[in-house]
Amino acid sequence: MEKTKIAIIGLGTVGTGVAKLLLDHGDRTARHAGRIPWLEKVIVRDLEKPRDVEIPTGVLSDNLEDIVNDPEIKVVAQLIGGTEPARTIMLQMLEAGKDVVTANKALLAEHGAELFDRARELDRCIAFEASVAGGIPIVTNIGQCLTGNQITALKGILNGTCNYIITQMQQHGTDYQSALKQAQQLGYAEADPTLDVDGSDTAQKLAILSHLAFGVRVHWQDIPLEGIESLQLRDIQNADRCGYRIKLLAESKLNGNAVEMNIAPTLVRKGNPLAEVEDAFNAIRVRGDAVGPVFFHGQGAGQMPTASAVVADIIDTVVGRTRLTFGNLELWSDAQSPRQLAPADTAVNKYYIRLQVNDDPGVMASLTSIIGRHGVSIASINQQQTQSDDPENTVQLVIMSHATTAGAIKAAADELKNSANIKGSPVVMRIMNS
Amino acid sequence: MEKTKIAIIGLGTVGTGVAKLLLDHGDRTARHAGRIPWLEKVIVRDLEKPRDVEIPTGVLSDNLEDIVNDPEIKVVAQLIGGTEPARTIMLQMLEAGKDVVTANKALLAEHGAELFDRARELDRCIAFEASVAGGIPIVTNIGQCLTGNQITALKGILNGTCNYIITQMQQHGTDYQSALKQAQQLGYAEADPTLDVDGSDTAQKLAILSHLAFGVRVHWQDIPLEGIESLQLRDIQNADRCGYRIKLLAESKLNGNAVEMNIAPTLVRKGNPLAEVEDAFNAIRVRGDAVGPVFFHGQGAGQMPTASAVVADIIDTVVGRTRLTFGNLELWSDAQSPRQLAPADTAVNKYYIRLQVNDDPGVMASLTSIIGRHGVSIASINQQQTQSDDPENTVQLVIMSHATTAGAIKAAADELKNSANIKGSPVVMRIMNS
Repeated sequence: MEKTKIAIIGLGTVGTGVAKLLLDHGDRTARHAGRIPWLEKVIVRDLEKPRDVEIPTGVLSDNLEDIVNDPEIKVVAQLIGGTEPARTIMLQMLEAGKDVVTANKALLAEHGAELFDRARELDRCIAFEASVAGGIPIVTNIGQCLTGNQITALKGILNGTCNYIITQMQQHGTDYQSALKQAQQLGYAEADPTLDVDGSDTAQKLAILSHLAFGVRVHWQDIPLEGIESLQLRDIQNADRCGYRIKLLAESKLNGNAVEMNIAPTLVRKGNPLAEVEDAFNAIRVRGDAVGPVFFHGQGAGQMPTASAVVADIIDTVVGRTRLTFGNLELWSDAQSPRQLAPADTAVNKYYIRLQVNDDPGVMASLTSIIGRHGVSIASINQQQTQSDDPENTVQLVIMSHATTAGAIKAAADELKNSANIKGSPVVMRIMNS
Repeated sequence: MEKTKIAIIGLGTVGTGVAKLLLDHGDRTARHAGRIPWLEKVIVRDLEKPRDVEIPTGVLSDNLEDIVNDPEIKVVAQLIGGTEPARTIMLQMLEAGKDVVTANKALLAEHGAELFDRARELDRCIAFEASVAGGIPIVTNIGQCLTGNQITALKGILNGTCNYIITQMQQHGTDYQSALKQAQQLGYAEADPTLDVDGSDTAQKLAILSHLAFGVRVHWQDIPLEGIESLQLRDIQNADRCGYRIKLLAESKLNGNAVEMNIAPTLVRKGNPLAEVEDAFNAIRVRGDAVGPVFFHGQGAGQMPTASAVVADIIDTVVGRTRLTFGNLELWSDAQSPRQLAPADTAVNKYYIRLQVNDDPGVMASLTSIIGRHGVSIASINQQQTQSDDPENTVQLVIMSHATTAGAIKAAADELKNSANIKGSPVVMRIMNS
C-alpha cells in the first residue's frame, strides 16, 4: 500500500492524541484512506520533555525545516495554539506546498481570511473540523452534508467549560466561583479561564460556523457577547422554577440578507435538547430550509475527541476530499456576495428580567410603567418574599416579557437601572425562541 | 460555469423534492458544487400524471434510454422504491457509465453486495445517504467524519412511523390500533404499514449502518427482530412509572470480532436523549473509541428532509467526493476480514418482565424460583392490585432483572409461559444499557 507522509507540529494534548491514533491504529487510518498516512515528523520545541506517546526514533525533531525541506511530506497537522507563531508557521507550510490540518479556532477567527486566501492562491487546502466543537463533526455537516439547504439558523453550546460550570451551579446549587474552581481542578478550565468564561472562545467558534453556514463576514469581536462571569445562582434557580435552564447559547440566524448573531446566558425551555446538554458536552442545532432541524451532541473538547476530528481531516486530506470541499466552501472568500451582521437592536426575543426592588407601595406600578413605556409587554410577574435577613427590605421581582426587540429591552433596562426603587442592576436574559 | 448533467428516475415524493431543490435553487447547488448540477432528464412511468413540480419542457420522459444514450448525463438519482425494477435499472445505469444516487434502503439491504461489486468493477460509485434516517447525514458521519475511530456501538430510532405510534400511545394513552390509524391519516404510515411496524424497515437500515460501521456481513433478515405490533399500552405505562420510555430500538455493538445486533421494543431511561425522541423523528447515537458518544437527531423521512440528503449526494458526486469515499468504504467489500453476527443468546442486558398471574398463595415463590433457576437475578418486583373487573382474579407482576443473557431470559420466559399460574404469555423487553 502506498504511503502519504504526514507531519505533526506541536505535541500538546491534541497532538499527542493524533500521534497515538496514527501510530497505534495505522491499519485503521490506512483502510479508510486507501493508503498509509505515515507519520514522518513530529515537531516540538523541547526534545527532552517527557511525552505520553512513544514517537519512533528519527521522527521527533525541533526543526521546522525538516518538514519544509521534505517535499514528500504532503499534509501537516498544525496543532499549536494561539495566533503567533501559529499564523507564520501555517503560511510557511502552505508556501512549502503542504496542505494543512488545524484545530486552532483562535487562529482562524483572527486570520482566516489571510490564510484561506493564501491557500487558494497557492492551490493548497486547509481542513479545520477540530477547530469547532471537538468531536462533533459540525464543519463537515454544514460544509458538505447539508449543502442542499440554505441554513436558516444555528444555535449551539460551544464551550464545555462554561457548560460544566453552569451544570454544577444548576445541579448542586454551587455558586459561580466554586463551580469554576471545580472545573479547574478537573482540568475542564484553564488556570486563566478568561477566554472561556467571557465568551470569547464561543465567539470565535460561532464566527467560523457562521462564515461557513451563511457566508457572513464578521469578526468575532463584533458579535454581541456576554459571558457567564456574572451569572448568579438565583437566576438559575428562578429559571428552573419557570421551566427553563440557563445555557451560554450561541445563536446565528438569517434575517433577510443579514445575519443576527448573539452569545449570552439564555433561558432554554426544559425538554429542548439544548437545555439537556450537561457537563462539558457541546451541542449544535442547525436548521435548514429543506432538512428542518438537525441536532448534534458530543464531546466538544478533550484529547481523543479532538484527535478524532483531526485524524478524520488528515484522512480527508490524504484521500483528496479536503481539496474538493475547500475549493467550494463559502469561507472567507470574495466569490459570493457577503452577508452582513444584522444590527443587534432589532433581534426579537422574549426576556427574563430580575429586579431587586424596594418593598414599598407604588413601586410595582412605577416599574411596570417604565417597562411598558419602552413598548415591552409583560407576560408574567412573580414577586418573591424578602429574605428575613435582608437588611434593605427588598423583594425580588421576576418578569417574563412577551417578544420584544433587544433595543427596547436595553432601553427599558437602562431606565430601570436609574430608578431609585431598584437595588443594584437589573438582570436581563434572553429566552430562546423555539 | 460548467454544467454536469443529472437525471432523476422516479418522480414520487422524494423525486419531486429533489427536482424542486435542483430547479428552484440551482444557484445554491452550483455554488456548493463549483459547477451547475443541471437537471437534464426526469424519467416517469406516466407522462400524463399531474405533478407537484413544474418540469421544464423536454426534460420529462418515460424512456430510460434517454439517459442511457446520453453520455453527458453523469449522475443519476434513482428514486424509485422496491427491489425490482430498481435493481435492474441501477445495474443498467452503472453499465451505461453513470454514478448513481439512491434513497432505496430495501434495494441496498437486499442487493447491496451485487450492486456495490458491480459499481467497483465498472469504476463507478453509488451514494446512499438518503437510504437511512432521511435528513440525518448519518452515512457520511460514519463513513467519513468518524474514520479516526473504531465504532464500538450504535443505537438508533430509525423508523419514524413506529416512533410516532409509540409517542401517541405514551403521551395520550392511545392504544396501538388507534395510534396506527392516526399515523395513517397523517401520512406517517402507509396503507399497508407492515414493513414499518414489524421492524423490517428498521432492520434494513440497521444492516446498512452496521455494514458501514463494523464491516459486518449480515442479511437484514438475520438480525434478531421484534416489531411493535403487539406493544401494549400497559407496558408503556409500567415503563413510565419506573422511569423509562419504550422505543423501537435498533442496536449494533462490537463484541470481540463479532457484532451483536438487535431490534426490539426496548426500555430507555428517561433523560437519555434516545428516550426523548418524539413523533416521527429519528435519532442515532454512535460511540467511537476516540470520540466517545456522538448523538444525531433529525427528520428521518418526508419529502424535503430526504431530498436534502439526495441533493447533498448529488453535489458530492458531481464534485468528486463520492468517488473518493466509495473507493475506501468498508461496505459489501471483500477487502476487509469481515465480522460476523454474534449469536443472539449471548447478549447481556437487563430485562423488564410482565406477568399476569393467579392471585393465589405460593405463586410468587413458584414464579421467582423458575426465574432464579435460569440464572436470572431479580432487581425489583412490583405487584399491582387486580383490577376490580378482572373475572380471572389475576394480578400484574412487573419484574426488573439484573443483567443477564438473552438466552437465559428466553429459557426463563419459555418455562414461565408453561406455568399454570400464568395467564397469557409473559411480556419480556430489554432495558437499554447506558
